[in-house]
Amino acid sequence: MDSNLLYGEYKTKMQKIADVKYASAVLQWDQETYLPVKGNDFRGRQIATLSEMAHQQFTDEKMGDLLKELAAKDDLSDQQKKNILLSLDDYNKATKFSSHFVRRMSETTNKSFHAWIQSRKENSFAVFEQPLHDLIELKKQEADILGYEAHPYNALMNEFDKGLTVAVTDKVFSDLKPQLLALLEDIKNKPQADCSFLHQHFDKDQQWKLGIELLKRMHFDFEAGRQDISEHPFTINFNNADVRVTTRIDENDFGNMTWSCLHEGGHALYEQGLPGDEYGLPLGEYCSLSIHESQSRLWENNIGRAQPFWQHNFSLVQTFFPEQLGQISAAQFYKAINKVEPSLIRTEADELTYHFHVMIRYEIEKMLIEGSISTKDIPVYWNDHYQQYLGVTVPDDKRGCLQDVHWSHGSFGYFATYSLGSLYAAQLYAAILSENDSVEKEIAAGNTMPVLNWLQKNIYPFGRYFTSEELCRKATGETLNSTHFIQYATKKFNAAYNT
Amino acid sequence: MDSNLLYGEYKTKMQKIADVKYASAVLQWDQETYLPVKGNDFRGRQIATLSEMAHQQFTDEKMGDLLKELAAKDDLSDQQKKNILLSLDDYNKATKFSSHFVRRMSETTNKSFHAWIQSRKENSFAVFEQPLHDLIELKKQEADILGYEAHPYNALMNEFDKGLTVAVTDKVFSDLKPQLLALLEDIKNKPQADCSFLHQHFDKDQQWKLGIELLKRMHFDFEAGRQDISEHPFTINFNNADVRVTTRIDENDFGNMTWSCLHEGGHALYEQGLPGDEYGLPLGEYCSLSIHESQSRLWENNIGRAQPFWQHNFSLVQTFFPEQLGQISAAQFYKAINKVEPSLIRTEADELTYHFHVMIRYEIEKMLIEGSISTKDIPVYWNDHYQQYLGVTVPDDKRGCLQDVHWSHGSFGYFATYSLGSLYAAQLYAAILSENDSVEKEIAAGNTMPVLNWLQKNIYPFGRYFTSEELCRKATGETLNSTHFIQYATKKFNAAYNT
Repeated sequence: MDSNLLYGEYKTKMQKIADVKYASAVLQWDQETYLPVKGNDFRGRQIATLSEMAHQQFTDEKMGDLLKELAAKDDLSDQQKKNILLSLDDYNKATKFSSHFVRRMSETTNKSFHAWIQSRKENSFAVFEQPLHDLIELKKQEADILGYEAHPYNALMNEFDKGLTVAVTDKVFSDLKPQLLALLEDIKNKPQADCSFLHQHFDKDQQWKLGIELLKRMHFDFEAGRQDISEHPFTINFNNADVRVTTRIDENDFGNMTWSCLHEGGHALYEQGLPGDEYGLPLGEYCSLSIHESQSRLWENNIGRAQPFWQHNFSLVQTFFPEQLGQISAAQFYKAINKVEPSLIRTEADELTYHFHVMIRYEIEKMLIEGSISTKDIPVYWNDHYQQYLGVTVPDDKRGCLQDVHWSHGSFGYFATYSLGSLYAAQLYAAILSENDSVEKEIAAGNTMPVLNWLQKNIYPFGRYFTSEELCRKATGETLNSTHFIQYATKKFNAAYNT
Repeated sequence: MDSNLLYGEYKTKMQKIADVKYASAVLQWDQETYLPVKGNDFRGRQIATLSEMAHQQFTDEKMGDLLKELAAKDDLSDQQKKNILLSLDDYNKATKFSSHFVRRMSETTNKSFHAWIQSRKENSFAVFEQPLHDLIELKKQEADILGYEAHPYNALMNEFDKGLTVAVTDKVFSDLKPQLLALLEDIKNKPQADCSFLHQHFDKDQQWKLGIELLKRMHFDFEAGRQDISEHPFTINFNNADVRVTTRIDENDFGNMTWSCLHEGGHALYEQGLPGDEYGLPLGEYCSLSIHESQSRLWENNIGRAQPFWQHNFSLVQTFFPEQLGQISAAQFYKAINKVEPSLIRTEADELTYHFHVMIRYEIEKMLIEGSISTKDIPVYWNDHYQQYLGVTVPDDKRGCLQDVHWSHGSFGYFATYSLGSLYAAQLYAAILSENDSVEKEIAAGNTMPVLNWLQKNIYPFGRYFTSEELCRKATGETLNSTHFIQYATKKFNAAYNT
């Protein structure tokens, strides 16, 4: 059959599957924002039905045959070939698991999630230990089924970042760790900024309006998206013309809403920038979780916690909160929002110590999957390393190894992408500055378009065409490394702590 | 195969189809409330895909075989048999139409809808005439395909109200018409109330809060539903635990929001009251459009435009709008909200003249489908009868036969249910009062629960078990007739016009 006709058939099938997937996403968005409480049970089954249907349609043998037939065609465009290659790869992965295995996984995950909830109530890891152990045993099987080279954990990391390996991650983290520790040691001995003014009362409606204004200033397209309130901030997309972010507002914390807006805004700009004509196809989807995270971190930190951005925007903040911040200088503000302070909770960590939270989880996951430690060893390892890296004593499991939901969901291989995202962000931002040395002048003058334009040229258009590493090399000329983050961090925190 | 196993299979299939249908409904709700403008095109295709999937799943041969096998079982419960019977009936209807016919219908409808939009722009029926003609020819074919006795229009009315016939409707309307005309004649000669105070400026937020409070007072369950803003008010449900109403707010009209809240609230109480354990099955669905409309009209008019309700609630309105209504008496208010005034636009018509708007459309549709008039005759017939029944001169097509969207959507057989709904409402309300003569005392004391309890006992639990007529006889002991509406209207408007 003619290649173009066949490709058209593939595109039609994929886009109908996307319609179902994104419909399910709309139901999830609604569940997190507006769903009346009693509607939860029915909503759960509606989402489950759509997910099941999308999975069935994609794993259908006819789809496999179509993909294989297309993979053998040599008269497709380079882009078309890439879509087929990636879809075939997705198909082969999706069809590796028996329905029996899928069911066992979802049952076990469900058990472990509820055990995690309970363990947090009782503030005791013991309650979570056995269900987590069972889940990890299944994750090991998942790694075997998926197949891997060198290390079983690679198989799991690949689910979130294709091509990512233990070797790469170990190398990056072992470079990063000593330099970070040195930087922290240095900072510890300097006088600490007062950031109490960030914890006054900040009116909810005013915060909401500020968040909207910040999103506008970073050129989030409100005709192709919106912001709403949810318990945990997230970004979700139904196509590149409908990308939605949520935020939460803590009236006693200026930072909570502000940097979640910039963070989710960064994710959202990426989704709004993906090619719409590739809707439902791999080239219309984001590259990897690491790259997605690099986009949020770039706007949250490299831009959103830097001097140029606030040089222009602090006056805006002051007009929203004259009583709280009218007497504060931009310099005081800059120091306060960049205060480094080792802490127990990852999601509240500063830009530097954050990486240790991630490294500890990464090490634990890796060892659990390779079998060099077992579930019961988690709390001790956790607490020792929080002491060792961060110098903080973990008072209980709730503020220790029970703090994140990820493991209870079976998300193993995920955490590293948080740190790698920051490193990619620093590396991309360095490339942006090196290509255009007036960028920070522009930002200080209120114009972030040069940054957005660079991302629209070097990151957004490619979807999944490149792996994280390929995209990074293409965009920055280098492979992923910690040098740029350390340079950025050293420069920044010297400035922030310069008294 | 064992009947219960087989019935379980049927239930599972139907509920999965319902999941898809209701997911599509969530996407439509979002489209009317929160969808960013650029997301419209993708949303359109997502909804289309879900509708197509739900249709394919329901019209699948396997579903037909299953239904036929179950229809032959005699060891099912009465309820189960009814579900099977109704589903089989739905299946037989749904499978009567060739995909070719379905496509032609949707293309023709699409053309006529856009022609209608254009004809309103140009304020000229001529633009709409040919596309409407083509659509009507298809609707005649639809009637033939569906099959009918006595009159082809019966087939189309049956789509909205099973068992409804031209004979029944003609009888009811011919009874109603002379009595209504007499009542109008009588009213015309009485002094007219001043209702200018209903057209002052009423703050948007205050109106919104009032609407929410009115919904609470009629016992709309906000844990199983919500209200939002949309251009045209509507009620939509995703299950009986998630029923959503919308309203619109006109800051220069007190009535617009207020009675749309009570109207949609009445629809919503019905949906919230349907049996949840019949989710996805006929017995979990509303009886008919006529009965659905009876529920909205009952709360909007029989309760919501009557003295007892406002005896209690007018003080609430005054606390929301002290400047506008603080000096107005409940009696003045009651007169104003019940002012009868023949007008051009159906959706703005009062409770009495409304029926003539419906009758005229009904007559035209009936004659179009039976072929006794043709499309080009519509404006003349329309304008003549607005003069004859309402004594108003239609100045142009936009305020005449182009005012409603229904025909352009191919909704023929629909309009009568608006009037029948009001008649059913009056008949049900009369039954409620005759069973419990303290109901209006209770309402006047702020307690509408006796009404809701009666509906929860006599209307809500039955879903589609009975036809409108069966349900009416069961609940009121009589077949549908106009007597109760005329009695209600005479009593009410004598009071409202009593000076």
